[in-house]
Amino acid sequence: MDAPAPPSYDPRTFQGLTFHDRTAAFADGTDSPRAYLERCLEAIAAREPVVRAFAALNEESARAAADASTERWQAGKPMSSIDGMPVAIKDLLETNDMPTQMGCDAFAGNFPKRDNACARALRQAGAVVFGKTVTAELGGTHPGPTTNPFDTARTPGGSSSGSAAAVAAGMVPAAIGTQVGGSIIRPAGFCGNVALKPSQGAIHRGERMATSMSTHGPHANSIEDMWRVAIEIAKRTGGDPGHAALKGPDGAPPATQPERLIALQTAGWQITDGATKAAFAELREKLTAAGVEIIDRETEDGVEALEQSITDAARIATDITAWENRWAQRNMLDEHPGGLSARAVAGLERAEAMSPGDYQGLLADRQVAREHHFALVGLAEATITLACPGPAPVWAGDQPGEPLAKRPTGDAAFNYPSSLLGAPVVTVPMIAVGGLPVGLQVMGQRGEDARVTAIARWIKETIEPAITG
Amino acid sequence: MDAPAPPSYDPRTFQGLTFHDRTAAFADGTDSPRAYLERCLEAIAAREPVVRAFAALNEESARAAADASTERWQAGKPMSSIDGMPVAIKDLLETNDMPTQMGCDAFAGNFPKRDNACARALRQAGAVVFGKTVTAELGGTHPGPTTNPFDTARTPGGSSSGSAAAVAAGMVPAAIGTQVGGSIIRPAGFCGNVALKPSQGAIHRGERMATSMSTHGPHANSIEDMWRVAIEIAKRTGGDPGHAALKGPDGAPPATQPERLIALQTAGWQITDGATKAAFAELREKLTAAGVEIIDRETEDGVEALEQSITDAARIATDITAWENRWAQRNMLDEHPGGLSARAVAGLERAEAMSPGDYQGLLADRQVAREHHFALVGLAEATITLACPGPAPVWAGDQPGEPLAKRPTGDAAFNYPSSLLGAPVVTVPMIAVGGLPVGLQVMGQRGEDARVTAIARWIKETIEPAITG
Repeated sequence: MDAPAPPSYDPRTFQGLTFHDRTAAFADGTDSPRAYLERCLEAIAAREPVVRAFAALNEESARAAADASTERWQAGKPMSSIDGMPVAIKDLLETNDMPTQMGCDAFAGNFPKRDNACARALRQAGAVVFGKTVTAELGGTHPGPTTNPFDTARTPGGSSSGSAAAVAAGMVPAAIGTQVGGSIIRPAGFCGNVALKPSQGAIHRGERMATSMSTHGPHANSIEDMWRVAIEIAKRTGGDPGHAALKGPDGAPPATQPERLIALQTAGWQITDGATKAAFAELREKLTAAGVEIIDRETEDGVEALEQSITDAARIATDITAWENRWAQRNMLDEHPGGLSARAVAGLERAEAMSPGDYQGLLADRQVAREHHFALVGLAEATITLACPGPAPVWAGDQPGEPLAKRPTGDAAFNYPSSLLGAPVVTVPMIAVGGLPVGLQVMGQRGEDARVTAIARWIKETIEPAITG
Repeated sequence: MDAPAPPSYDPRTFQGLTFHDRTAAFADGTDSPRAYLERCLEAIAAREPVVRAFAALNEESARAAADASTERWQAGKPMSSIDGMPVAIKDLLETNDMPTQMGCDAFAGNFPKRDNACARALRQAGAVVFGKTVTAELGGTHPGPTTNPFDTARTPGGSSSGSAAAVAAGMVPAAIGTQVGGSIIRPAGFCGNVALKPSQGAIHRGERMATSMSTHGPHANSIEDMWRVAIEIAKRTGGDPGHAALKGPDGAPPATQPERLIALQTAGWQITDGATKAAFAELREKLTAAGVEIIDRETEDGVEALEQSITDAARIATDITAWENRWAQRNMLDEHPGGLSARAVAGLERAEAMSPGDYQGLLADRQVAREHHFALVGLAEATITLACPGPAPVWAGDQPGEPLAKRPTGDAAFNYPSSLLGAPVVTVPMIAVGGLPVGLQVMGQRGEDARVTAIARWIKETIEPAITG
């Protein structure tokens, strides 16, 4: 076997597959959603054998949907700006034309004939719900077969492994991921995607309401596609029960230069490699040079208070979610003995040793962090930090006889804080380290998804990426 | 056919089936959970042909569970104070040994091999999960076959029709109901049950997280059984994701005389018959005579503000829930065309005409009501009002060619406020009108389930019921 070429990702030149720039051609007949879909299928044929982003494909129903969309564009009556867009769906979410197997033996062959709220909304907007993307088992840490499109030896991140990789490999212009700890933003960061983890509750989660810190959001190759997917879903699904829906314009909010940003370290800083730290420092300097004031824990007591309240975010978030999942996972094990990985069973047993009082204590810790975050309203327009502690790590698979690798899909240390806070995050590919992508994430206050998108867009369009390593 | 005897319910003499008073006999061997279960089965054999409370029975697994409990009591090692208690489960909630058909054609034959969180918790506490009780279709308004145990021509109320009727008919000492609008407290009121609608979020809802105002709670014939069931469940399930669990002692909180109570009219007062109004007035007088100060909208501006904010509770609560259910119901209709009643389809179509902005407006209305309720903290220990606007109405079934009766399971006007407020309620059978039961409900602030129980217990043990009509 030939030695693979060294990774050579460069955010300044990487051209990902986009959709928004094709709709004019759909309208004038020089391109069509069906032709677009066929190009996606060609990309899948070329790269899927190595990338392994998909758990299922629905070529037939996708072609039918693309044909219907083609007719609508030709009749001048698209249902939305994403009419005809092939959007892949993480395999945690139900789709009425494909199985939903969740990367989990207990769900092998599971095929409910229902659509998750976002799949239904995408169809209502005319989009082509296309393929189910590989997820780490049940959205946790036990990896699927997907490889990083920029280096096959490395993880694409998880748990939205296939969504991030399919978008990075040019197989689809957008894919839906889900995040409980760091499952949208981390793989997006490792794969050079743009992605939105919405405010907690801003996009209806359909059948996946079991946990208090999960969100569904789009991966894409442009801010424009990302935003359009998110808003067209939210306009149709609304938010979760009891929550306001994502709000904003039909197209991506205009790029907006912030006056002041908070640079947040989080617990992730301690495990970040030197080259990535240098890249982040370089971006800070470039932002300052562009006229943005950057404040941090050293210059502002309120930021230090927030940093301290999220030091333990990984444990708090993990334990909250483990408790919330324990009832469903025990049902699953009862029904399918042996249907869960050893990793998942270990987490379940930890959760079953907790009490309602333990859980309430964790909720109190979470609330403290939320108060410290909310106390920063008005101090700065948004917060920036890394999306991941460096480029995607190498993972060679579990080794028989060895203890299970703890974080085979990478470390979510930079992602737990926004999950804990319920805060919206957009990641943009602003860094390359050793020829591999690393994301920069922009976080806002709950409900400020559009503002965060506008600032992330400004950074992406204005600031020169940092290349190190 | 002989004319049936006229209704003759009297809360002063009615002896419902209880459990807590048998555990000493289980321990000393003069009675056993298996014998108790057999008595329940005898009651079912005698009354079920007319009452029709059950959608499914699991005699075999129930007997096995009762035998195991018998052994534990004889060994002096019961798992909890409800070890061996037969508890029926509303047929909206999944049980691993019985089908879950939800009173809905779309779910005919549905048999997931999973336990709802409360069913699992009951088994973990040693209780005998016994039978599925009839629900109005999907917990809505389209009735099942159950009749009122005190008058076969009348509804038992809904949607927890079978749970309320089974407890009233002496078939089980406790049953789980669920409430979104008025589905625990109204049927309990019509059937002379004691019942708890817990604080929103205080008991984990398992697979039924889709709506922001639903709760699961026990119907029973005594405060002691009601409380024990609730607390033993909550100790094991915890609350909903993001919520604190129900808290309190293992046994029912001691009866507590309040210094001051608020008498709330709600929109229900306008549709209440004269005999029931007179009974409520009589109870107010008896409470005053016992030394409890009663305040109301005429004496306190804050109460008037709350009354006004809940005038429209029925519409606000109904529309919120309809919006929250629309995605799941549309999936259901797609999968099972014709699987929903005309009543349910009409509600779905109304909801699908709403927008996320409409929903957010309803949430704002709800929040206003919650603020007005919270503003009364410290003014009084609890609120009293009727559980239903008089005795259960007669319902003769839908008539071909006629418009659908609007409220075949009775009017929930007295129940929407507590659902909207997320507030805990206990109903106690304190009234008979024309030989039929009418409940008196006690409502507290969110989280005050134990306090409300203590006050309801005091009322039940201290105040003489009102008999009118």
